Amino acid sequence: MHGLGNDYVYVNCYEESIEAPALVAKAVSDRHFGIGADGLILIQPSEKADCRMVMYNADGSRGAMCGNGIRCVAKYVYESGRVQSPRMNIETDSGIRRLFCRTRNGKINLVDVEMGIPVVEKREVLEAGGRSFSFTPVNMGNPHAVLFYTDVESLDLMDLGPLLERHERFPDRTNVEFAQVLDAQNIRLRVWERGTGETMACGTGACAACAAAISMGLVKRKVVMHLTGGRLDITWANPGGPMVMTGPAAEVFRGEISLKDFLKN
Amino acid sequence: MHGLGNDYVYVNCYEESIEAPALVAKAVSDRHFGIGADGLILIQPSEKADCRMVMYNADGSRGAMCGNGIRCVAKYVYESGRVQSPRMNIETDSGIRRLFCRTRNGKINLVDVEMGIPVVEKREVLEAGGRSFSFTPVNMGNPHAVLFYTDVESLDLMDLGPLLERHERFPDRTNVEFAQVLDAQNIRLRVWERGTGETMACGTGACAACAAAISMGLVKRKVVMHLTGGRLDITWANPGGPMVMTGPAAEVFRGEISLKDFLKN
Repeated sequence: MHGLGNDYVYVNCYEESIEAPALVAKAVSDRHFGIGADGLILIQPSEKADCRMVMYNADGSRGAMCGNGIRCVAKYVYESGRVQSPRMNIETDSGIRRLFCRTRNGKINLVDVEMGIPVVEKREVLEAGGRSFSFTPVNMGNPHAVLFYTDVESLDLMDLGPLLERHERFPDRTNVEFAQVLDAQNIRLRVWERGTGETMACGTGACAACAAAISMGLVKRKVVMHLTGGRLDITWANPGGPMVMTGPAAEVFRGEISLKDFLKN
Repeated sequence: MHGLGNDYVYVNCYEESIEAPALVAKAVSDRHFGIGADGLILIQPSEKADCRMVMYNADGSRGAMCGNGIRCVAKYVYESGRVQSPRMNIETDSGIRRLFCRTRNGKINLVDVEMGIPVVEKREVLEAGGRSFSFTPVNMGNPHAVLFYTDVESLDLMDLGPLLERHERFPDRTNVEFAQVLDAQNIRLRVWERGTGETMACGTGACAACAAAISMGLVKRKVVMHLTGGRLDITWANPGGPMVMTGPAAEVFRGEISLKDFLKN
């Protein structure tokens, strides 16, 4: 399944179990020798919520939460009947998230996700590569630096991304958002993800950029974020409350893999 | 399935049919929104041979023949019982190929393929980018230019590949092989494929480089080609006869996709 092209291999761990998930994540994510994915997400029963997602990145490292992935988990458990109500809670490594599946003919195409309360800090300026950059630091559970431009298409992210991600201002490195305000309800956004590079869509990045733009008075409280992989709708109704992100979830195919044979090859 | 990391989505067209294969090839090959593959191969019944392979590249263009793909087709039809004998003929757009599946416990890991008779021309020199390049033109049904180096790992193929592929000497462009003779029975090879760039493994490229090296007296008539994706064994027993390539074929997973839903998304 994928959300805006951010694709994972999802395993129904109500029925299956995986012994060495980090190893399996790395192997199945390989584009040529494996299935090909951004990582592996295990869908498990939860004692605290309606279900639980456990995610691994393509390099085998553990991920805490993924806004595109959690929508697909919701679609899966609802359509398979594991969870009966379209309103559900999903446990992640960064806490329990509330979601709402929008049904159409019994299928899910769009899912609302409560993405947490952003912490938007004051704008700062830093120097890098002989240039000055104004940015807004935003914490969405993970760190973001949001920059505004009048034309983000022409930016060279291969140059700017590493320069900012690894700047000494960010000892733990940072995600970087390059935002262009199109009008009071639309933002074009390119995201440089920490440790990954430019990606087609990043839920926390979209929220961070939206929160920075709202805080600066550039846009209204309900914004369409135009990411490279597609569109996310974000609403931040109350400054002290959570942001709600609405986006697509799509199933591509279902398959079976013999891990014993596959890992041997 | 993949052969040395050259992976395709294979469809059993004894039971399934695909209406617009070029469109489907492009869509399913997409790494993020599709299944992710180098292209689509249809396995069909044949009136002239034991079965037929019809291939499409990831961009939707029709391919004639693929040495890594045809081994996987042989593995599939043998293991599924469609073809009973490990010695079989497979029809391709560039003629019928003879293959032999090497069985181990009823499974196929290695397949021999008759790759045709190479046409090795005299060595030439061309000028490009202010430098001189000695190369051997070889035709394996498709055009190749084989260059020999003492250390191919250090070469910058992103620089050299386009320079040679698109040189005016090759009006239809050419595949380019960068070969390093390790000893009389081993060649390290990097391949720049026409229209694709550097690839992990190319069957006709391995044959072309091997034929050039044999013709120059650099190696024996049985050679192990060490490609980036793994190893191919090539035998050219008689100068006027076909080359035989032996290489692996591996299944990764089996799946089902609803093309109607998928193409709509």
